[in-house]
Amino acid sequence: MSGVPTASSEHSMVETRHQTRLLTLLRDEGPMSRVELGERLELPRARVGAEVARLDEVGLVETAGPSASRGGRRSTLVRLAGDLRVLAVDVGATSVGVAVTDASCEVLAHTVEDCDVRQGPHPVLRRVAELAAKIRDEAPGKLVAAGIGLPGPVSFAEGMAVAPPIMPGWDRFNVRDHLGGLWGCPVAVDNDVNAMALGERHAGVARSTEDLMFVKIGTGIGCGIVLGGKVYRGVAGTAGDIGHIRLDDYGPTCACGEVGCLEAYFGGAALARDGLALARSGRSTHLAEAAAERGSVTARDVGLAAAAGDFGAVNLIRDGGRRLGHVVASLVSFLNPGMVVIGGGVAQLGHQLLAEVRSAVYRRSLPLATGNLPIVLSELGDTAGVIGAAWSATDRAFTLSS
Amino acid sequence: MSGVPTASSEHSMVETRHQTRLLTLLRDEGPMSRVELGERLELPRARVGAEVARLDEVGLVETAGPSASRGGRRSTLVRLAGDLRVLAVDVGATSVGVAVTDASCEVLAHTVEDCDVRQGPHPVLRRVAELAAKIRDEAPGKLVAAGIGLPGPVSFAEGMAVAPPIMPGWDRFNVRDHLGGLWGCPVAVDNDVNAMALGERHAGVARSTEDLMFVKIGTGIGCGIVLGGKVYRGVAGTAGDIGHIRLDDYGPTCACGEVGCLEAYFGGAALARDGLALARSGRSTHLAEAAAERGSVTARDVGLAAAAGDFGAVNLIRDGGRRLGHVVASLVSFLNPGMVVIGGGVAQLGHQLLAEVRSAVYRRSLPLATGNLPIVLSELGDTAGVIGAAWSATDRAFTLSS
Repeated sequence: MSGVPTASSEHSMVETRHQTRLLTLLRDEGPMSRVELGERLELPRARVGAEVARLDEVGLVETAGPSASRGGRRSTLVRLAGDLRVLAVDVGATSVGVAVTDASCEVLAHTVEDCDVRQGPHPVLRRVAELAAKIRDEAPGKLVAAGIGLPGPVSFAEGMAVAPPIMPGWDRFNVRDHLGGLWGCPVAVDNDVNAMALGERHAGVARSTEDLMFVKIGTGIGCGIVLGGKVYRGVAGTAGDIGHIRLDDYGPTCACGEVGCLEAYFGGAALARDGLALARSGRSTHLAEAAAERGSVTARDVGLAAAAGDFGAVNLIRDGGRRLGHVVASLVSFLNPGMVVIGGGVAQLGHQLLAEVRSAVYRRSLPLATGNLPIVLSELGDTAGVIGAAWSATDRAFTLSS
Repeated sequence: MSGVPTASSEHSMVETRHQTRLLTLLRDEGPMSRVELGERLELPRARVGAEVARLDEVGLVETAGPSASRGGRRSTLVRLAGDLRVLAVDVGATSVGVAVTDASCEVLAHTVEDCDVRQGPHPVLRRVAELAAKIRDEAPGKLVAAGIGLPGPVSFAEGMAVAPPIMPGWDRFNVRDHLGGLWGCPVAVDNDVNAMALGERHAGVARSTEDLMFVKIGTGIGCGIVLGGKVYRGVAGTAGDIGHIRLDDYGPTCACGEVGCLEAYFGGAALARDGLALARSGRSTHLAEAAAERGSVTARDVGLAAAAGDFGAVNLIRDGGRRLGHVVASLVSFLNPGMVVIGGGVAQLGHQLLAEVRSAVYRRSLPLATGNLPIVLSELGDTAGVIGAAWSATDRAFTLSS
């Protein structure tokens, strides 16, 4: 490990703003010659040469085979060092995913397992550390950064969840310092939906889009907002928290303690609840079978029943999709985004849900706002969150600490 | 006029990016010594001296009395030339305001009169030109920039309204070229609500706020979104168009041709309609008197009746305020802004309306999003739009044309 810069959460890996821009450019656009780097960064060739040499010395970049000839002599390509590793963690309400990526956020190894976030930070982060240790063996290298997404409001600046409704014990627990101490590298902590939005923005269906809304439908419902290519977090870090938009003052009770929230009507928990009621009512043989087998019904059961043509299950998804669509329609009128991406576990219900949301948005939003608006399903599925977490992690590691 | 740079919409007033930053800093923070300018712009003193000399030569800045001593020799202050003038225009659905400001966007003269935007661009802009000619006599000087706000979706880049629902004849009419040709200076064209939001951001109640929503309730309802100190326009320029968020698929018909829009329930036109119905029903003596006198009822009549304690009128404002509040509550959860400012003609109904909106937002939005959220009335009233238009105008004039 000699020659590798100290990558603790206290010390920056980079020494100049030019190095930040250079590393970020290589991450975002891949290997480049020194000439191209100079043109893109608007820096004199000598300066580029010196910065590349310094980054090479500390093991952050390396030079690769010759680039395509541009008429003059053949030049070698500069790229991010192939042995750099990033740990990326996606904590959901009921699952945890851990991945190892290279410094370009390409996933090299990935594992997902069930995990209840309500156990609190110590058991969950202990399990994360175990999974990380295991998975690092599959893609060994030098760990330079880590990123984690959490299923609640996060203070990005402080690296912790703040007053999260479904995460008892996590409130203001310093996840960044905890994992930074464990792994000895800079750690970025963000909301899970923001991470998924970033993942789709950089490696998924929204690659060419600067302004997008990523709507996650999992156990809960949330939205990641990317504006000008960056996550918009709002003044208290709660931007995009659409699950608790109230649809009705006298609606069903929500996990947050309020009533009538969007999440109390739709989302995984609500679908499971309504699916069980449907099973017990005798109006769905598919769901009655699932309930008889395991004593409960999951959102996935509802999805399977709907796919098999179960009328009651189809109606549940249509009703929920319509309610979600009304909310999304208002937000599309308000924000005028370039794309809406639907993701998360329940999104795997797929095209029936998508059809309902589309129908509501195209019918209700301003024609000008929907004229060129794609409403699409996530491309990355359960890797969106870890890719986005890796992106935030490298952003943090490549930035000069102030 | 010799020595003054050509300020047409084709030619830029500034020659370097440093000049742009220098002029903008003087506009935003007032007179400064060369030493302060160098510190704030992170430029060597000689460079600042040369840029100031050049801007002085062409009449854009001037040097004023000595600044407060900082221990060394007394230095003179640099400020924007006192004879620079900006024309700022605020076209509403039923009124037009024209102001002359100095280059710091301080209003020197202002006039407002009734004007129906539905007359189309030629008659309206002819009247704007007449008012501008008259008002320029009250505050003579060198015209360097103009800005105009229009009551509909605007393509900021092209300088024109695009498919505006209440502006027949204006669709894709090139307002920027028209006024640029007339006045021989750079012209910025924006949506009226965006201009009002910018006005409050720079000179009003939101001076210290980077992220805010400005909700305008006039004949129609709209919202200006300022993020990171800049207007957020969305990909098609329609961001903030909340007046046509649909509340009910079977609601009243809206001016846009759809049904159940927020604007069809509340806003000036809806209040006038419901006020007249109330007058005719015999349930409001105040409004019946107004109707008998003029054959119609205005939103202002409803406001006056409510202020006098008329039960029916109070209920109209409460119902509308509650509906508006529900929409604003959702948007606050979604955007997590630092401030909500309520303005526009109907906002002069004032505190009853504000109370309803506040009650809905504080009751329905996430506690984290509302914890430090002021919801306040506009401070600038009918000058918000012209101050914001002047701001966009100087932004444009101070920027290098590409």
